[in-house]
Amino acid sequence: MSCDAGADVFITILAGGSGTRLWPLSRRTAPKQLLPLLGDRSLLQATYSRVAPLVPADHIFVLTGPDQADLVAEQLPQLPQANIFVEPSPRHTGPALGLAAVRLANRVGTKAVMVSVHADHVVLDERAFRRAVWAAALAARRDTLVTVGIVPSYAETGFGYVQRGAALEPSHGCEIYEVARFTEKPGHELASAFVQSGEYYWNTGYFAWTLEAILREFARQLPALYAQLQQVGAAQSPLELQAQAVWSQIRPVSIDVGIMEHAERVAVVPADMGWSDVGSWAAIYEVSAKDDMGNVRIGGGPQLNVDSRNTLVHATAGRMVATVGVQDLVIVDTGDALLVLARDRAQDVARIVEQLRAEGPQELL
Amino acid sequence: MSCDAGADVFITILAGGSGTRLWPLSRRTAPKQLLPLLGDRSLLQATYSRVAPLVPADHIFVLTGPDQADLVAEQLPQLPQANIFVEPSPRHTGPALGLAAVRLANRVGTKAVMVSVHADHVVLDERAFRRAVWAAALAARRDTLVTVGIVPSYAETGFGYVQRGAALEPSHGCEIYEVARFTEKPGHELASAFVQSGEYYWNTGYFAWTLEAILREFARQLPALYAQLQQVGAAQSPLELQAQAVWSQIRPVSIDVGIMEHAERVAVVPADMGWSDVGSWAAIYEVSAKDDMGNVRIGGGPQLNVDSRNTLVHATAGRMVATVGVQDLVIVDTGDALLVLARDRAQDVARIVEQLRAEGPQELL
Repeated sequence: MSCDAGADVFITILAGGSGTRLWPLSRRTAPKQLLPLLGDRSLLQATYSRVAPLVPADHIFVLTGPDQADLVAEQLPQLPQANIFVEPSPRHTGPALGLAAVRLANRVGTKAVMVSVHADHVVLDERAFRRAVWAAALAARRDTLVTVGIVPSYAETGFGYVQRGAALEPSHGCEIYEVARFTEKPGHELASAFVQSGEYYWNTGYFAWTLEAILREFARQLPALYAQLQQVGAAQSPLELQAQAVWSQIRPVSIDVGIMEHAERVAVVPADMGWSDVGSWAAIYEVSAKDDMGNVRIGGGPQLNVDSRNTLVHATAGRMVATVGVQDLVIVDTGDALLVLARDRAQDVARIVEQLRAEGPQELL
Repeated sequence: MSCDAGADVFITILAGGSGTRLWPLSRRTAPKQLLPLLGDRSLLQATYSRVAPLVPADHIFVLTGPDQADLVAEQLPQLPQANIFVEPSPRHTGPALGLAAVRLANRVGTKAVMVSVHADHVVLDERAFRRAVWAAALAARRDTLVTVGIVPSYAETGFGYVQRGAALEPSHGCEIYEVARFTEKPGHELASAFVQSGEYYWNTGYFAWTLEAILREFARQLPALYAQLQQVGAAQSPLELQAQAVWSQIRPVSIDVGIMEHAERVAVVPADMGWSDVGSWAAIYEVSAKDDMGNVRIGGGPQLNVDSRNTLVHATAGRMVATVGVQDLVIVDTGDALLVLARDRAQDVARIVEQLRAEGPQELL
C-alpha cells in the first residue's frame, strides 16, 4: 500500500458507546475503548496505531460522546482537536456514521473515501487488518459500499453475519465479493450452518465508501434522518442547542438495518486478522497471552498463585491478588469494586450492572 | 451452676500464637483470635463472653504475647490489666500453661481450680460449653486433671484424640471418664476407626485442674521446665531481662505430650457444643450461617451476587464484591490483599504465606 495512492482516504474511528459486560473496569465515564483493557494502551490508542500507517495524521477522525471527548484528546495528543467529532448522545451506528459522513463531506468534499472502524476491538494481526481495510478503501472508489468480514472460527450467536455473493475483481490483492445478505444475530443452528457453508463472514462494522455514495443512500433510504443530519452537520458544533434539539429527535437505527441491507451496491472483503470484539471478559481471556497453566495476568500489582488454572486476573488496584486452586475464573480487582466471575458466565456481568442501576450504589456504574 | 459454688475457680484464656491458614485476614500483628472472623466481635471477645457467666470478672485471665497485649486490653476493657499474663515468646502449650499456673498460684494459692480454654475457637452452643467446662472444673477438685472432649462428627486427621476409659461418677450432671490414651493427629484410617468406636473424642485443649495437681505433675514429669517456670514466675514481669533469658532457654513442648499423656489421674468430660477450631477458611464456612444458596457473607461493604453458590465472601475492605456464577469458593477481600480460594484447598493458603515469606512483600505477612 502507499499513502500517495490513498490521498483521498479519511479514516473515522467510532469511539462512542459504553459497554456493561466489562464491569467493573468499564464505567459510564470510562467506557471500554478508553481503558487499558489488555495492557498499557487503551483499545482506542491501539486502534489509532493500527490505522495510522495508512493515511496522513490529519486524515484520521474520532467520533465520540461529549463526556469522553476530553479523554480522547488526552489519549491521542497527535490527533488534531478539530478531528474529534462529537455526537450529542448515542443514537446507534446509523446516525453516528451519517453525522460523521456529513461533517467529513463539509470538510473534504464528497469525492473522498471514508473508512470507518470501531475503537473497541482487538486485532492480533495488524498487517492483515491494514491489507483488508485498504482493499476495502480502494474498492469503495468503484461506487460501492464495502464492508470487511471476518472468516468465522465458530458459530458465534452474538454477531451479525454477511453472506457473500458473486466474486468481484480483486482489490489490492484481496478477494472481494458482492454481498448477498446481512443477517442479524442468528440462532445457534443457523450460525453453525453459516460457518459450515464457507459463504458467511462475521460482520465487523468496518466500512469503506465514498461520501457521495453513502450520502446518496441516506437520502434515498432514510430521507428524514438525512435532513436531520444536514441540519446538525451545518451547525458550528453539534452541541449547539438547536443542533441538539434536532439530534434528540433522531430515531436510533443501526447502519446495517437502516442502510446496508437495502443498499444498491454492497461488497465484502473477507479477512482473517485475529479479530475480537472483546465484548466480554471471556473474550479478553481468549485474545490474551497465557502462561503454561493457561492463566492470564493483566495490570500491575503483585500476584501469587498456587495451582490455579485457566484464570484471568485483571488487577489495577495495586493490591496483592492471591489465588489458590481455582479454575476457569475471571477476577477483576479495581479500587472500588471486585468481580469474581465463572468464565463461562461472562455474559451475566450485565446482570450485576442491572442490579447496580436498580439498587446502586450509582457511583459504581 | 452457681458462682458461689465456684468461688475458687479461675479461668485462663490462651490467646497467644498466630495462624497462617487464615491469611490474608490473619497477620503476624493481627492473629486469628484478635480478628472479627465471624462478624463484629473477635474470637477472643466471643470467648470472654462465653466464660464470663461462670466466674467473677476478676477470676478471668488472658495469656498472650507482648506484641498483642495492648490489643487484648483494648478488646477486653472489662479485664483488669493485672489479669493479662504475658509470655515473652511462644514456647507451645506446655510452658504457656505452666507459666499461667505458676503466676496464678502466686496470686491465689495452690488450692484454687484453674480452667484453661483457647481464645481462637468457635462454639455454637454456649450452654453446652459452660455445662461441660463447669463439670470439668468441679471434677478437678477430685485431684484429677480434666480435659473436655468433643464428640467427633467425622474422621478429622488434623486434631488430637482422647480415648475414654472407665466411667467415673458424673460431675455437674455430665458424664466423665478416665482417659485411656491421648493420640496425636492420626491417619485417616485410624481416625475413622476412632470415630466409629464411639470411645474417642476430639481433644479441645480445654483443661481443668487444681494448681496443686498441675504443678505437682510439672515438678514430677518436667522438673527442668518446672524450675525455669518458677524463676520466670517469680519475676516482677516475665519481660524482665533475666526472666526473658530463662524463658528463651525453655524447650517447646505441648501440654499433651509433656504432661497429660503420662499424668497420674486424668479424666475427660465429653461434650457436643457445636465446636470448631476454625483452623481454615473451610472451617469458617462450615460454622457460619448460610443463605438458601449456601452462601456466607461476613464483613461490611456492599455485595452483589448472580447465581453463585456455597461461597464464602469475607469483605472488610468496604469495596463492592460482585460474584457471578461461581461455586465453592472463599473470597477474602482486605485493604491490601485479596484471596480467591477453592474451598476444598483451604489448607494450601499456608503455601501462599510461605511464598510471601520467601519473596515478600513482607508487610503482607
